[in-house]
Order: sequence, then C-alpha cells, then structure tokens
Amino acid sequence: MKAALLHQFDESLNGPDWLSYEDVSDPIMEEPTDVIVRIGGAGVCGTDLKLIEGLWCDHMRIELPIILGHENAGWVEEIGVAVESVQVGDPVILHPTVSGDLQGSGATGSHHFRKRGFYPGFNRNGGFAEYMLAEESMLLKLPSHLSPMDTAPLADAGLTAYNVARRASKHLIPGHYTLVIGAGGLGHLCIQILRALSSTEIIVVDKSETALDLARSVGAHYTFIADEHYTEKILALTGGKGVETVIDFVGKDSSVNKGLFVTRRGGHYYLVGYGGRLTISTLELIRSEKTIVGVLGGTFSDLKELLTMVDRGLVTLTTREYSLSNANKALRDLKDRRNKGRTVLIP
Amino acid sequence: MKAALLHQFDESLNGPDWLSYEDVSDPIMEEPTDVIVRIGGAGVCGTDLKLIEGLWCDHMRIELPIILGHENAGWVEEIGVAVESVQVGDPVILHPTVSGDLQGSGATGSHHFRKRGFYPGFNRNGGFAEYMLAEESMLLKLPSHLSPMDTAPLADAGLTAYNVARRASKHLIPGHYTLVIGAGGLGHLCIQILRALSSTEIIVVDKSETALDLARSVGAHYTFIADEHYTEKILALTGGKGVETVIDFVGKDSSVNKGLFVTRRGGHYYLVGYGGRLTISTLELIRSEKTIVGVLGGTFSDLKELLTMVDRGLVTLTTREYSLSNANKALRDLKDRRNKGRTVLIP
Amino acid sequence: MKAALLHQFDESLNGPDWLSYEDVSDPIMEEPTDVIVRIGGAGVCGTDLKLIEGLWCDHMRIELPIILGHENAGWVEEIGVAVESVQVGDPVILHPTVSGDLQGSGATGSHHFRKRGFYPGFNRNGGFAEYMLAEESMLLKLPSHLSPMDTAPLADAGLTAYNVARRASKHLIPGHYTLVIGAGGLGHLCIQILRALSSTEIIVVDKSETALDLARSVGAHYTFIADEHYTEKILALTGGKGVETVIDFVGKDSSVNKGLFVTRRGGHYYLVGYGGRLTISTLELIRSEKTIVGVLGGTFSDLKELLTMVDRGLVTLTTREYSLSNANKALRDLKDRRNKGRTVLIP
Amino acid sequence: MKAALLHQFDESLNGPDWLSYEDVSDPIMEEPTDVIVRIGGAGVCGTDLKLIEGLWCDHMRIELPIILGHENAGWVEEIGVAVESVQVGDPVILHPTVSGDLQGSGATGSHHFRKRGFYPGFNRNGGFAEYMLAEESMLLKLPSHLSPMDTAPLADAGLTAYNVARRASKHLIPGHYTLVIGAGGLGHLCIQILRALSSTEIIVVDKSETALDLARSVGAHYTFIADEHYTEKILALTGGKGVETVIDFVGKDSSVNKGLFVTRRGGHYYLVGYGGRLTISTLELIRSEKTIVGVLGGTFSDLKELLTMVDRGLVTLTTREYSLSNANKALRDLKDRRNKGRTVLIP
Repeated sequence: MKAALLHQFDESLNGPDWLSYEDVSDPIMEEPTDVIVRIGGAGVCGTDLKLIEGLWCDHMRIELPIILGHENAGWVEEIGVAVESVQVGDPVILHPTVSGDLQGSGATGSHHFRKRGFYPGFNRNGGFAEYMLAEESMLLKLPSHLSPMDTAPLADAGLTAYNVARRASKHLIPGHYTLVIGAGGLGHLCIQILRALSSTEIIVVDKSETALDLARSVGAHYTFIADEHYTEKILALTGGKGVETVIDFVGKDSSVNKGLFVTRRGGHYYLVGYGGRLTISTLELIRSEKTIVGVLGGTFSDLKELLTMVDRGLVTLTTREYSLSNANKALRDLKDRRNKGRTVLIP
Repeated sequence: MKAALLHQFDESLNGPDWLSYEDVSDPIMEEPTDVIVRIGGAGVCGTDLKLIEGLWCDHMRIELPIILGHENAGWVEEIGVAVESVQVGDPVILHPTVSGDLQGSGATGSHHFRKRGFYPGFNRNGGFAEYMLAEESMLLKLPSHLSPMDTAPLADAGLTAYNVARRASKHLIPGHYTLVIGAGGLGHLCIQILRALSSTEIIVVDKSETALDLARSVGAHYTFIADEHYTEKILALTGGKGVETVIDFVGKDSSVNKGLFVTRRGGHYYLVGYGGRLTISTLELIRSEKTIVGVLGGTFSDLKELLTMVDRGLVTLTTREYSLSNANKALRDLKDRRNKGRTVLIP
Repeated sequence: MKAALLHQFDESLNGPDWLSYEDVSDPIMEEPTDVIVRIGGAGVCGTDLKLIEGLWCDHMRIELPIILGHENAGWVEEIGVAVESVQVGDPVILHPTVSGDLQGSGATGSHHFRKRGFYPGFNRNGGFAEYMLAEESMLLKLPSHLSPMDTAPLADAGLTAYNVARRASKHLIPGHYTLVIGAGGLGHLCIQILRALSSTEIIVVDKSETALDLARSVGAHYTFIADEHYTEKILALTGGKGVETVIDFVGKDSSVNKGLFVTRRGGHYYLVGYGGRLTISTLELIRSEKTIVGVLGGTFSDLKELLTMVDRGLVTLTTREYSLSNANKALRDLKDRRNKGRTVLIP
Repeated sequence: MKAALLHQFDESLNGPDWLSYEDVSDPIMEEPTDVIVRIGGAGVCGTDLKLIEGLWCDHMRIELPIILGHENAGWVEEIGVAVESVQVGDPVILHPTVSGDLQGSGATGSHHFRKRGFYPGFNRNGGFAEYMLAEESMLLKLPSHLSPMDTAPLADAGLTAYNVARRASKHLIPGHYTLVIGAGGLGHLCIQILRALSSTEIIVVDKSETALDLARSVGAHYTFIADEHYTEKILALTGGKGVETVIDFVGKDSSVNKGLFVTRRGGHYYLVGYGGRLTISTLELIRSEKTIVGVLGGTFSDLKELLTMVDRGLVTLTTREYSLSNANKALRDLKDRRNKGRTVLIP
C-alpha cells in the first residue's frame, strides 16, 4: 500500500520533506479482535509536528520508520474471528487508542484489553496510509450520511475539544466568561460545543485574523488579536475580575502566562496545547485559588456523544483536504497556519 | 488592652523580637452588626512568619503597626444593635473573614456584607490581643464543652485542612493513595479528616521524626522522612503509578517538584503551603492529565462541619500554648519546628 | 392602598369571585432590614388557585384575609435604616422568600435571617396589591432596560424552571431526550433554559394546541398532544427506551403515571406540578433504577443566573397582562388555560 | 454435577421444599470468552425467595427448571480460547451480570458484550450448583488470602450495599444522619461502608434484636426496634428535622412510608428492598423537595472497590454457611430471619 513514513526526526523543523511517500507492505491482523481499516481520511495535527521534532521521545518508545496519523476514519476492510460489533464495509471512526479509559482512573469497568499501550500514529503505524491495523474496541460506526473523510478530525481534535468543553460546562454558570486561546482545528470545534452545552460568553484570541473570522462565524461572542494588550481588554470586559475558564489550545509560555493571568479567582485554566512551560508562584496560586487541568484526548463515550452532536448539526467541521501524497505540504501549511479549521489527508 | 504588635517587616527573619508586647487602646464598634470578642486563644501560623517577612505586601495593603492573628476564638464581649445570633458571654470561634464566600464563586446567595475586604490579622487588627473587633457573620457559637483556647486552631489550620480533605474525598475511591506533605498544624488535622471522610490510604512525609510520630498517632498508614529518596519509596509502594492525591502543606520548590512527580496520571495535586514556585512543562502536564488546585481557607459551612467532627471526637487537636507576652518565642519555635501540632497564644 | 384579598377558601373552585378588590392600609416596616416595594407586576400562578382551594392549609398556617401574590417585581419605595444594597427608586425583582437556602441543606453559609418562615403570598401579604413589605435579602436589582412588569414571572415560574433545568443539565448528555409535561408559564421558560444549558432533545406534551404552538416557537424539538397515546409515541421516538429526563409541570395522577412510565432505566423524573399522587411498586422502582426528585422554587443564586440569561436574550417571556382589579378574571382564564405563557397582574 | 433446582413457583411461599437437590449435566462453554467456574460459595438472598414466589415473572422471562444463585465465587475450572485475564485455578468472584453498566447510562465505554441479558440465577442457571457458566467480563480475581466461600456475599449483597453507600457518601456531610432500615445481609455491610466513606451518624432500625446487636457491633451509632414508635424517636434525635438519608433494605409498605416520613426536607431516600408500594402526594413531595432513588446491584468498578475495602479490613462479613444439599433449610431460616448477616451455600 501507499503510506507517508517518518524516517528521521527533525529537531529544528527546518527540513522541507519530513515524510516519505512510498510503498510499504499492508498491515496484518494478529489477534481475534483485530480489524483492518481502509483509511478514508486522516487528520493532520500539531502533535504530528511535535512528533517529527522528536518531542515525544522522552515519553514513549518510538521506533523509526513509522507511519504517523492518529486521527482516522475509514471503512472496515477485514475483521478478526472474534469481532462482532462491525462488519466489512461499515464506515467507522477510530478512537485514538484501544481503551475508553484515557483519564487514568482505572475505574471504569471490566475492560480486558489485548493491546495495552497501543497508540497508532505515536508508537504504532497510524493512518497516513491506505490501510491501518486497529482493534474492535476503537471503532465507532458512523451514521450513513456522515463520510469518513468529513469526520476524521472528530477522532482527536473533536474528541479533545469535546472533553474539555464538557468538563468546563459542569462548572460554567450563566454570567461566566470563557476564554478560548487559539481558534484552529480544536478551537473552532470547542467554541461550538461550549455554545451547545452551556450559556457561557465566549472570548477568543488568536494571532490570525482568518482564525478569528472562523471563530466569529461559529459563535464566538468576542474576539481579540493575540497581541500584547489582549489581557487588558479581557479585564476591561469582565469588570476587572477575569474569566471563569480559560481553554488554552496553544500552550506556549506566553499563552500560559497570559491565560493564567486572566483566570479569575477560583477559576479554571485548562491546558490542551503544549510546547512551553507553566510557571507560577505558589503564593499566587493559593491566594487566587485557581485550578489548572491538563487535558489529553477523551474517552470512547466522549467520541460517541460528540458524534451525536455532529449528527444533529450542533457542530460543523471546517476542513481543508490534501491528497496523502501531499502530506509534507499539508504539514508545512499547518506549521505556517495557512488554513482555516482542520487539515485532512485523503489517500 | 495588651497586644503584640508588628511595627516593621523583617525580610530575612533574623530579628529576635518581631512583635512588641504593649498597651494599645481597645477596639471600638463601628457598625450595627459589629461584635467585640474577648480573645481566649489565637493560633500561630506559618503565614504570620510570611506576613512578618513582608511576603503579602504585593497582594494586600498592610499598614503598620498591626496586630497579627487570624485564627481566633473567644467570648462575645459586646454586640452591635443589629446583632441577633449571639449574646454577650457566648463562646465563639471566628471565621477568618466576613464572608462564607472565600471560593470566589460569587454565587452562594444573598449576602449583603458590610465589611468587604476585612481580613483581621492581615489588613486589620487580629487576635494577638485581649480584644478584637469582629462582625456577626464571622461568628460560630461553640458547644458548651469546647473551650476557645482549645479550638482556636480550627479557625484557619482546621478550616483549610477540612476544605482540602473534603474536596479530595469527592474523588478518592477505595484503593487510592493520598500523600500528605508536612505533618504540622494543618497536616495532623488533615490526616484525621481524610480518615473520617474517605477510605484512602494515607502516606505522610515530613523532615521531622517528631512530626511523623504525631502523623502515625493520628492515623497515617505510611510515613517517610522527607529526604532525597522518598519519591522512590512512594513509587515502590504504589506499583510505580504514584498517588491519586497529593496535599502539599509545605509549598517550597522541592516539595512541589516531588509532589507533582509522584502524582499519578489523572491525579490531583492540592497546594496549600507556599513560598516557592511551581514549574512544569506543558507537555508533561497534558500527557499526565493532572489537576493542580490552589487552596486557601474554607467557607463558613466548612467551619461548621469541622466543628461537628471535633464535637463528635472524630478530630483531635494537638497544641502547645504560650502566653501572649511570649509571642516571639512562639513564633521562633514555629520557625524552628520545635513543637508538635499547632501553637496557640493565650492572652 | 388597593389590593385583591382572599377572604375565604373555595374548596371546589366554583365561586366566580375568589378575591375582593378593596382598600386596605399600607404595609409598615418593622425591622431595620425591611423594604417597602411598590409593585410593578405580580405573576398569577397555579399555586394561587391551590391556595384558594385551601390545599396548602395542611402544610402552613394561613390566616384570612390575605393578599396572595408570590411572584413580584417593582420599585423600592422605602428602606429600613440597615439596608445598604438597594436605594429608593431602584427597579427590583423579589425572590419568593428571605433565604437563598430553599433547598433545605442548611449548609450554605452565615445567613442570619430575621424573618424565617416569611413567605409573602402564602402566609404573609403578597404582591396582588400596590405595595408590599419585603426584606433586603429578597431583592435583586434589575438591569435598567428590564421593567418590573415584564420580569415578574421570573420570580417564581422562571426561578423554578431554571432550578430544574440547571439540575437536569448536570446529567444530560448529547443523545439524551427530555420530556417536558406542560408548556404553560413554567414550561415555556424551561424549554428555553434547557436549550441554553444542554444539547438534550426536547419533547413537549400538553393538552392544548396553543401551548404546543408556544413550545415549538421557543425551541421544542417534538410536540405531542397529551392524549392516551402519547407514551407510545415517545417510546417509538426513543427506540423503546424512554427518555433520560422527565420534567412534570402538571403533577396530576395521569401525568405522573405516564411520566414515570416513559422515564428510561436509570433516568430522572422531576416533579414540579402537584395535585395528584405518585404511586409505584418498589420492585418496579429498584428494577428500573429511577430517580424521582421533588422541586420547589430555587435559590437566590438561581434567580441571579436566570436574570443574566434573560438580560442576554437567551430566555424570552411570553405573558398576558391584566389590571389588578381584574384579578378574578385572570385567575379564571388561568384555570381554563385560555392564555399562552404567564399571566401578570398590574396594579 | 449436583445442583439445587427450582421446578415450580410457590406464590404463597408455604411449601417446605422449594428446591430439589439432584444430578444435572455439567454446563458447557459456548463462546470464546466463556468460563466455567467451580463454585466455592453461593450467597442466599431475599430475592431468591421473591424469585420462588414468581414475583420477577412480570419483568423477565424465566424458564423452569432453573438453578438459582446470583451471588457467586469460586475457582476457574475451564476457559474459552479468547480468555486472557484469568487462568485455570484462579480464585474469582463473579459480578452478577456481564456488564459493568448496570446503571443504564449506556455511556461508559466501548463494551462489546456477547451475552446481553444474561443474568445467572435469574434467567440462566446460577450458582446453587457445583459448576456454573460465566463470561470473562464478569470475573474479578480474588487476592490469595481471601477465599471464595468467605467472599461470595460481596457479589450482590456487598455490591449493592457499596453502590448505595458510595452514592450517599457524595452528599453526606458532617452533622448529617443516615437511617438504615434492615440490618441483615446488606445492612450489616452498608453500615461498615458508610463509616469508612463518610462521617455520617448511623441510625439502624430492625424488627430483630439479634440484627440490632450485629448493627451495633459493626458501628451503628443508634439502634431502634422497628415498632410503631421509631419515627418519633428519630425525630426527637434529629431535632424534629428527620435524617438526611434513608437507605431502605426492606421495601415493604410500612418501611417505605416511615422511611419517607423521617427523610428531612431536601433529603434522599434510597430504596433497595422491594415487595411493597411507594405512595406519596405530589404536594408533599414537592414541598419537601425529597429525592427518591431506586438502587439495584452495582458496577464492576463498585465490586473492585469493595474488594479493596475487604482486603484492607475495613469491611468484615458475617455469614452462616449451609451445605448445598441443605438449600431449603437455608432459605427457610432466611425467611424466618433466624441468622445474623448473610447465608451462604457450600457445594
């Protein structure tokens, strides 16, 4: 099959061609609950750039070459003998890993997983390819009128945005403000989910006017360019108090510092993006009684609930599609923030 | 009346005599809901040392001289014309401020407070004195068999320990471990409250063997000296996963770093002590999906609930009493960690 | 002043003229926190008919004659010496009672209420009059562009609808259905609040086509006439499972039986209306693991949050106004369900 | 193998010998995830009497003859080809059904169950036998020092008691009272779990002095004989307010009426036992703002958490063992309440 492979890390992200588009052998089923999926679309994520940089190597054993792509949807091509919940030909979206238990609680039931530590697109071959090896428990059947290429970004960008918006909606009450930092692939979905699950007023900051256009078109109440002065504008808007909730999809030093600064006393700062450091004096943290939450992905239930919302028209994806052979251009355009919404590769 | 006054800050905490024991005029009532309390006992807190250092000056306007003491109990001496809930002679404990709404939510009812921003022992005269000006809404009547000198530490050390233990108990399930860093005035109460409100297994670390003795006697399941190797011991004890919850009553750089390090994936790190900085890479924070919570004091309801526990014998205070004229010695002994439990001044 | 008085109960509700429009003496302030409010509008509620029937006499001491009216808004006319949060002339809405603590928890802070058990329109004179005695802690200032006559129904119909919708929204997830029984004064507000706070799909049943029209215009997704067959239609719509949440604003035997019947396994049935009995076999209740919740009014915070939503245009009231001298006609039209939305009396 | 079979229902429970002890063929595996368990102990439950009465026939298709027994522990005898989490010889306890999802939420993950609607001891052969057919997802391995005969009652009595105590502990605060109605197999476990998870004061009522002895020995704070006057005693004890939480393990008309009567305003009434009817006027329900919850069993996580508590000595079972050939005597003694704690059959 055709696939886009990463053969070596590029710490400085200078290289023009990070992935190599080539022929590789098809994936092979190993377990009775395995499934081969024919990829319909694979989302391109900031994390793919971070993987190329080698940033995840401290946290996970990654053997090269590897096929990236952790945000996948497609059609069932072949199933193991024990698979019962899907049939060959079914359109499916793939949860990023085999467990619904991403939250680390270890307390959600009688899961007996055969493939622990299996993270396609991180430490196993992912979806920047024609076919991918998956496990039955990762698969969620798509409603017939939703296509894999249009829904792939729900598998990670949507999942994470839903997880964080759902959690925030539990403590957001009418009168509360939420600041969304970054209106890209995740941000433009999070805005819509927040609107559907709460009545919070949504402020969006981004460096790009195009992104702010998208933010406004999907329901942001206030938008500000991410310059030096946006924190003052937010304090002015909120009577000097700051916002109840910040959702930071950027995670660089400056977004973290500014985001924490405008979080009001007793408020919540959710960190989703990464790359920088979070630093705060302990006196400042206890005095302001803030809560800081690291968020990664979401559960299988989150994916089901999000799909229900998309199915009902409460959330609409904005995507730009590239052919798989153009993976490097897609990654470069993502790095340069040239596109609105999410980038998707089509094999 | 007699009082112990702070006349000047001492940034290096070198001075032998921080407070001056002298005669000052009695407090005077200003509002119809004011109350004068005759102090029975006033707890001495690490925060008093931090106030003497001048560490709070960036966060609050503090005019010198001032009478410190934010952890007070006593008897009602005189009441304003609108006061209805207490009578002269009643034994009372004093919530640290006029509002039950320390959490900053602004959403707990129809409070109409006359004294916003009134923090005795911080920006107003506190309880290191014979008498203190309070407000009706701060006062909680003591059951007849509990004395002000014995319960004063509940007003802040107990209140804060209860607040954090109550919050942790909402997500602690059987099988979860909790690490308590620091078994002093707050820690020895927190251990008891955790045992009463959950079935978590409690690990305590402290630099002092005396403090660990106290920890064991009030119910700690495991205790370790706070040396270089305690994190390894905790990982060994928890099968390499770390603990679900850390409650850090120290808040120095090293306790924060170690505490965050042993917080398991998806776990909670509660910060109560302060003095250092918290620093974490954003990738590490999102990958481990931790929640970091700054905690300060507690609500009026927290104080009532804690008092109920003490009344039923579920929580027992360990204190050492000094006369008010010995305030400097009490502060020095606290600084040098010479005592078990909480230090209390008696006028 | 002019007022509409109830001089005697009418168990069968046959009488044409339940209230007598007459001159009575103006209310007089008794406590330093008392406030006299000039009534701008007073909502008419099904509970007023039940009070006239004498249905509340078993639960509360009601001395006749009395001025009904527990859903009030107006302008501050006169204030006691201790009142600080409002000034003469301020437009205000009145929480139904002096405490924000309607939920019975007794655990929300340091409230010192002077008028416990004071329920205007139930056991004290209410707002079917030109002036009414209130207490400072009941009053919430209106934004300048909202008028008392337009907002009065928020004080009880809105408050209760908000309370129940807020609680339901905590457990409603995308894909869940909510059945609202009754689309009158409370129901038409509840539909809007549910839409703002959750993404539940809303089914509404009512005996009146006019009410269903109103339901659709404010956002109901499905509407059914409350005939013998509606439960079958709901089962058909929900794949035989029933709905996650029922909110019953009627509370008669038939609505309770049908409502409980279509509540799915593990679902919630909220009872707001009353008049009939709830009966269920204990085997059926444990087997289906349902939760049944009685709801009455809401807290002061609920009222603030609702007012925020109205202020932002998320909730719009439909009302019909009558002059106070026409109180009997307003009550008859309510009894016969001749109006859309809520009925309001204007002095 | 030997088994105790129910050949016909006995509506009046008059018959001396409900079950027939006889030879039947061994169970046979059907699916790759099936497991045959050699029974070590099988708890006897009030529900077994209700099944014999035919009370469950309206809710479930039950074909006779059937082997009862839904509370089982034993050793793995044989495993299907896809089974990975247990090995032959492992001591195991059996969750009552194949899914951790007893709560009906349908929202807990990617479970792909092969045996939906499989309830051993209800509609399939259960554990009153030497061997039983189970499914891998039902099995929880026992720590080596816990034996199947001693832990069997955890599988249902313990599971249900844990579920309800866990839920109650989320809203119980210091100062709250809990009334436990019935101190038998479930009640004596629930008392211990409530003590471990909360600081509520526990009141127990039962008709039997022996049961109240057991209740006191496991931690009840107050005990009352279940006569006509116990509600008055509870009101006297609670200052006329009633208790925050009732847990009713009896579920007859009189326990339901009395239990609801002493539930305080805003309190919770949990129904676990069954047999009678629950009836309440809707006015009374809304005025008192009570919450009524039907509880059945618990999740797989509940079972794991409970086992952790038993393992740590926080919960101790009181049981009386009978040989399987004495099943009828065990059932009669249960009906006549002759034993303390839970009754267990040993094959």
